[in-house]
Amino acid sequence: MPIVVQKFGGSSVANAERIKRVARRVVETKEAGNQVIVVVSAMGDSTDDLIELANQINEKQKPQAREMDMLLATGEQVSIALLAMAIAQLGHEAVSLTGPQAGVMTESVHCKARIVDIRTERLQKELEAGRIVIVAGFQGLTANGDIATLGRGGSDTSAVALAVAIGAQVCEIFTDVDGVYTTDPRVVPRAQKLSRITYDEMLELASLGAQVLHPRSVELGKAYKMPIHVRSSFNHNDGTMVQEAEGDMEKELMVSGVTYDMNVVKVGLFDVPDRPGIARILFTALAKAHVNVDMIIQSAMHNERNDISFTVGQSDQEVAVAVVQQVKEEIGAGGVIYDDKVAKVSIVGAGMISRPGVAALMFEAISEEGINIEMISTSEIKVSCVIVAEDAKRAVQAIHRKFELDGLDAVNCEGFATA
Amino acid sequence: MPIVVQKFGGSSVANAERIKRVARRVVETKEAGNQVIVVVSAMGDSTDDLIELANQINEKQKPQAREMDMLLATGEQVSIALLAMAIAQLGHEAVSLTGPQAGVMTESVHCKARIVDIRTERLQKELEAGRIVIVAGFQGLTANGDIATLGRGGSDTSAVALAVAIGAQVCEIFTDVDGVYTTDPRVVPRAQKLSRITYDEMLELASLGAQVLHPRSVELGKAYKMPIHVRSSFNHNDGTMVQEAEGDMEKELMVSGVTYDMNVVKVGLFDVPDRPGIARILFTALAKAHVNVDMIIQSAMHNERNDISFTVGQSDQEVAVAVVQQVKEEIGAGGVIYDDKVAKVSIVGAGMISRPGVAALMFEAISEEGINIEMISTSEIKVSCVIVAEDAKRAVQAIHRKFELDGLDAVNCEGFATA
Repeated sequence: MPIVVQKFGGSSVANAERIKRVARRVVETKEAGNQVIVVVSAMGDSTDDLIELANQINEKQKPQAREMDMLLATGEQVSIALLAMAIAQLGHEAVSLTGPQAGVMTESVHCKARIVDIRTERLQKELEAGRIVIVAGFQGLTANGDIATLGRGGSDTSAVALAVAIGAQVCEIFTDVDGVYTTDPRVVPRAQKLSRITYDEMLELASLGAQVLHPRSVELGKAYKMPIHVRSSFNHNDGTMVQEAEGDMEKELMVSGVTYDMNVVKVGLFDVPDRPGIARILFTALAKAHVNVDMIIQSAMHNERNDISFTVGQSDQEVAVAVVQQVKEEIGAGGVIYDDKVAKVSIVGAGMISRPGVAALMFEAISEEGINIEMISTSEIKVSCVIVAEDAKRAVQAIHRKFELDGLDAVNCEGFATA
Repeated sequence: MPIVVQKFGGSSVANAERIKRVARRVVETKEAGNQVIVVVSAMGDSTDDLIELANQINEKQKPQAREMDMLLATGEQVSIALLAMAIAQLGHEAVSLTGPQAGVMTESVHCKARIVDIRTERLQKELEAGRIVIVAGFQGLTANGDIATLGRGGSDTSAVALAVAIGAQVCEIFTDVDGVYTTDPRVVPRAQKLSRITYDEMLELASLGAQVLHPRSVELGKAYKMPIHVRSSFNHNDGTMVQEAEGDMEKELMVSGVTYDMNVVKVGLFDVPDRPGIARILFTALAKAHVNVDMIIQSAMHNERNDISFTVGQSDQEVAVAVVQQVKEEIGAGGVIYDDKVAKVSIVGAGMISRPGVAALMFEAISEEGINIEMISTSEIKVSCVIVAEDAKRAVQAIHRKFELDGLDAVNCEGFATA
């Protein structure tokens, strides 16, 4: 009997009514002839409530990571017990398992542990007994016997890891949206839902802001070739299948998606002395300050001094600028500029690898709108441009049109999640 | 270094401020030169909140006991993590352990499991590392690897069991009251706090209504001779030490306590044919209906018919009366009466074993008040009388005086817990 892993996030189990709806969905899958493992997150805002409690206790110093994990793991444990009860109400046998009980073994690190192994004995036993197995996402057990949580994207990662370990046919990730779109339907009403997308494309899209699926889980899916079906918890439509590139897949679309990210600050250090090691000094200093740097552009000028610019998220702006000011003094650069009125617009597509001119087509779309490009960064399957923030949506619309991604029907964009 | 186990109930950890107060108390004990294991219950009403959630899900049928345990166990897990954080804020190393992590092994029964073993490896390791160990009360692990809760009195029982397993010097149970009193200070302002009491006396007092300590934990303490110190979480006074009878202990007090219980219904079946097996038929029928019968009196009359009467708690009244009505028809008894305007007044004391006339002294105290005794039941260290409810407090006062238990000072009865 095929095994299906289904993952439901916190908003899908936010209250008793929603838990009952998830239970019906799970039972349908079981009655369709599958063995089912369900991974759930903590109910709605319950994790925030637990964090608030911890904040009331920890006035002087940060709480110990181990104890935060002990605390936060209760959130998913509540969800799994309630979902198991709701399934039993529908006349099916269900059993809930904490991450540790489900055999999810992690590194001995807290709050951001990685899964190192899944011991499937208990899962196998429960499936063989005909039960629907409900597993607490986001958590596992360290070699010391402690509870560890997986950090951001943890529940998606739990689901894909369980699917891989148990040999599931597919891992279904239920979200508020119908799947992965060619772009944000709120900006381009004729954005199209992609029926298929490669892991690499999804990785680029995920880190660019289409927050339907966390990159960690996509990486895991890619490593073990586990098909991930991103679909809506509100309807039964097919969503987007994230999977290996197939023979004909590349041909379909040169560009799979157009994304934009408004959470960008451009920081520039100009008139930098042109000698080896400058970039190392700058980016080591930023890394030490825990600044997450995204795009980096170094442009060699005709004279002996040049400019280095990079982008960071808005929350890192203050620290990044302070670090760059200090580096400026140290190395004797000309000055520092920063600008938070910018946005990043990107195209992603495995199809562009074998097709020259894709980037040029994007630049053409932008320039036709009279928009100036401030920074450009490219990877094998992605091209990103930093432009003035207020032009971002117009640029996305132009690019979407230029690559002939506009569908015939306008998309209902209610609930569409973006960066 | 001596090991002390300290147990704090749900009201002691009901919010962040109270958790911090418990943390200070624990740290004091550690700094006084002890190794400390702390057992805590779920915060305040959090268990009720979880039950309410489960009720919203389980409309058609009762939830599975296993899943209720999965759900309810989160309550204590939240408390232990927060208390460990609060202790760390005070500069001490603490580690929280769930019941399963602490090695508390239970029967494979849910919602009312009994502890079968405690595997102390992890506890030992953490204590040797100099840490204060915080354990979730009320929960353990079955041989199947499932979480089981211990049912009523579970946290007290966890604490005493851990104290026994680890070889603690004493198990301290912190409550809202100063200790165990000779009677309810709200009825007799000159009630005295008992400095010592035997396990047997405490067992009789506990089941009679002095709800400071659950009988299960007292039984466990008695079996392994673990001293249990019942004391206030609001001050540092010595409370009541529950321990083995010592040589001079018996001599101290003929009667240790006077209790009363208003939650009593008297049910009588009269004109019962005097033939063997009638009592068996009646009490088997009551047991099948899950009626918890307390006192049983059968009085043989001069003729060939007699009366059987018994007491039950008020919640069992309806079922009990219905059962007795049916038995009446079956065996051809004369009639059924019941009365819920009664109360049970009792004296408890290991000292009465070797002293004849203790029961008579109690009857004398009651009759001097002009109060009629409706039923009498005695055990080795207890005498109980059923009387009219409105006379109960006057009877308690008279008995307390008769046995010379009145102290010199009136007790501050605020927060005193009674049945």
